[in-house]
Amino acid sequence: MPKQIRLNAFDMNCVSHIQHGMWVHPRDRSAEYTELDHWVDLAKTLERGLFDGLFLADIIGVYDVFGGGPDASIRGGIQIPVNDPTLLVPAMAHATKHLGFGVTANLTYEQPYTFARRFSTLDHLTRGRIGWNIVTGYLDSGARGMGGERLIEHDNRYDIADEFMEVCYKLWEGSWEDGAVLRDKSRRIYADPARIHAVRHEGAHYRVDAIHMSEPSPQRTPVLYQAGASTRGRQFASTHAECVFLNNSSMANTRELMADIRTGAAALGRDSAGVLGFVQFAVVVGATDAEARDKLEEYRQYASSEGALAHMSAVMGIDLAAYAPDQPIGFVKTDGNNSQVEAITTKSDTVFTVNKLVERMVIGSRNPPLVGSPQTIVDAMVDWIEHTDIDGFNISRSVAPESMVDFVDLVIPELQSRGVYKTEYTEGTLREKLFGAPRLARPHPAAGWRRT
Amino acid sequence: MPKQIRLNAFDMNCVSHIQHGMWVHPRDRSAEYTELDHWVDLAKTLERGLFDGLFLADIIGVYDVFGGGPDASIRGGIQIPVNDPTLLVPAMAHATKHLGFGVTANLTYEQPYTFARRFSTLDHLTRGRIGWNIVTGYLDSGARGMGGERLIEHDNRYDIADEFMEVCYKLWEGSWEDGAVLRDKSRRIYADPARIHAVRHEGAHYRVDAIHMSEPSPQRTPVLYQAGASTRGRQFASTHAECVFLNNSSMANTRELMADIRTGAAALGRDSAGVLGFVQFAVVVGATDAEARDKLEEYRQYASSEGALAHMSAVMGIDLAAYAPDQPIGFVKTDGNNSQVEAITTKSDTVFTVNKLVERMVIGSRNPPLVGSPQTIVDAMVDWIEHTDIDGFNISRSVAPESMVDFVDLVIPELQSRGVYKTEYTEGTLREKLFGAPRLARPHPAAGWRRT
Repeated sequence: MPKQIRLNAFDMNCVSHIQHGMWVHPRDRSAEYTELDHWVDLAKTLERGLFDGLFLADIIGVYDVFGGGPDASIRGGIQIPVNDPTLLVPAMAHATKHLGFGVTANLTYEQPYTFARRFSTLDHLTRGRIGWNIVTGYLDSGARGMGGERLIEHDNRYDIADEFMEVCYKLWEGSWEDGAVLRDKSRRIYADPARIHAVRHEGAHYRVDAIHMSEPSPQRTPVLYQAGASTRGRQFASTHAECVFLNNSSMANTRELMADIRTGAAALGRDSAGVLGFVQFAVVVGATDAEARDKLEEYRQYASSEGALAHMSAVMGIDLAAYAPDQPIGFVKTDGNNSQVEAITTKSDTVFTVNKLVERMVIGSRNPPLVGSPQTIVDAMVDWIEHTDIDGFNISRSVAPESMVDFVDLVIPELQSRGVYKTEYTEGTLREKLFGAPRLARPHPAAGWRRT
Repeated sequence: MPKQIRLNAFDMNCVSHIQHGMWVHPRDRSAEYTELDHWVDLAKTLERGLFDGLFLADIIGVYDVFGGGPDASIRGGIQIPVNDPTLLVPAMAHATKHLGFGVTANLTYEQPYTFARRFSTLDHLTRGRIGWNIVTGYLDSGARGMGGERLIEHDNRYDIADEFMEVCYKLWEGSWEDGAVLRDKSRRIYADPARIHAVRHEGAHYRVDAIHMSEPSPQRTPVLYQAGASTRGRQFASTHAECVFLNNSSMANTRELMADIRTGAAALGRDSAGVLGFVQFAVVVGATDAEARDKLEEYRQYASSEGALAHMSAVMGIDLAAYAPDQPIGFVKTDGNNSQVEAITTKSDTVFTVNKLVERMVIGSRNPPLVGSPQTIVDAMVDWIEHTDIDGFNISRSVAPESMVDFVDLVIPELQSRGVYKTEYTEGTLREKLFGAPRLARPHPAAGWRRT
């Protein structure tokens, strides 16, 4: 059987995620992001298409580098306003049975004790369908909201992240033993104190002396997502991540990065197939290639180059308003841990111009969308899988909900007819669906804190 | 028309909230607290009963004073495990249209910038049905989970809380002007930067230089709940609170406290009717008084005195395991800001024994439940309203969901037939339903930060 393609939808609790300008399209309903029905409808569409998950991005802060302030971002709704993503999950979980949820949360501004409870709660309420996309932030504007002046330095953020993960693992895996919860009405004992242990942690960044507030959830540790491409980021991914989001600037880059992460995981004794790689694409599909191209041209009329530049200025840390359209952009920020930054900062194709960036970002991607008939789209997807050793895709919206409905109606049947996509969900938690196992196995660091 | 009685259900995202032991009752389903259906069913029951709101308690920490550790709490499920309450709201909100949600959140462990976004998100997703019960914590065990050694001193917590409120008001009320969001597809402008302002706050405890991440939600500031009975707590309530939770140890105490808070609010120029007072009761209702008493006796068989003592030991800060059943308890902790503490520490009836405490707490209350036929129950409720000038009740579960279903089926029609309870919801946000106005009015401090 050919490799089965994994699919996440890629979205954000805001108007304009990465398809800047598209909210003004007459059929687009992205501005309804504050309505629960908007998200519940999306979740149902995705479950109809047997998507593995919905992946929700997030930022803390605002893109305020372009033109020296946030005005362009505000005008275009460029990830501002941006609401909390975790609160979308319970309503969508109640309306679905199998769809997973990968939620971005920035650990820099959290304490492990309350953070671990929040994700345990999500894992309980979804019956084990929660994932966490681990980020540490990349915006000085966010730091200024949180009482600081600027972002903590890149590698130091990863040191903090490693310790944060350790404390979370202790809480999720080590505090309550299997079998600690008896729920025994006849003996009137809810849980056995002898099997519940205080986490005592004294580290450089965190101190905890407490039992985990939540009883063990179906997955205990949520499925761990990460998107770091720097050397330190890859090391973090190889150590912790179960799913990684990779730059799709070229197949060669993606293949190299995927191989590096798998090699890194294997060097640590992990199963290299225990890390799933995803790249992001916008998809514009029509009954024929010509129809899809027409649809793309129609979409393009609404795309916002100012929005794309406002976004990328913050990502790159340089004010692109100061550049002429074809002027080479020499300097790029290199301390991001976010795939958005690293997509353009760690690879060789670094001669950028404003025009090139705008061209790339025009419909919901830092790279051109996949455009064509279902056959053409699936050809391209299979090509990526075969040539890069990735496992699947994060599909972003262009016009919402139209693009995702199109994808489910047109692309999913073609994927299935090629034998590269499931025809029904398997039972179990998100981790069981993705990896066939309920728990992280040694030598993943989470497993090291488990009491047996 | 007689005064209309307001009703909240009082619950918590845990097995045993205040009705310790009742989870072992054969018909009780409290142990299903990790299931979304459990909460959605509750919300639908409450909306059927035209409840104003569901009020969700919370703690950060564990009750570990009784017997010198958490064992009794763990055995009885005494607010441990305890999951995050905010994550219950979106699923319940999607299944209802009018029910409000008052969520407890401890500001001591939050930063205003991200906290304000979380509550703005909740207010958007509920279409303006969110309230916030402001607490600052009272458990050293919680502090030890969050990197500290012990709780911050009581009055200092209120100073921090005042500044936290100020920053939140600036974010909720002052950052985005009315009319800032244009959502104008034809001009391709989502929001007008000229009407959106960075909050620049430099205080003793918080520093923020950022625009609020969320666009204005229906209520902007959530409906504010508080339960402080100390002198400093009353001052805080008079300044900020729209709904207060009061000790119900006696009508005289409640009347005095309610009058003091109304006087305090009026002294600050607020409308004294703009603060609604609630007391908490468990209600055991039957077709007749005799049937209700039989039901109470049946319930009592499952009540846990150990659970009650584990809870109260932490609330009082003394290990009640060291006391003989009839030995007077001389010392009581006085620095709590929680109504649970202050219910027993600030009033005159302070000669406690373990036996008295157990007797009081036996079915879901620090005081005896209301027991009887619908007529008897409503007589008592009307009596409380008339003699104390409070506005309504927080009704706690005894056996779940049975007690709340009984209440809706039996007590609500009797309240309606007496003309003291609504027969349909009014339209609008929670604040509009409770106060007839969409926004907090001057001189409430929230209104002072509004730009007009």
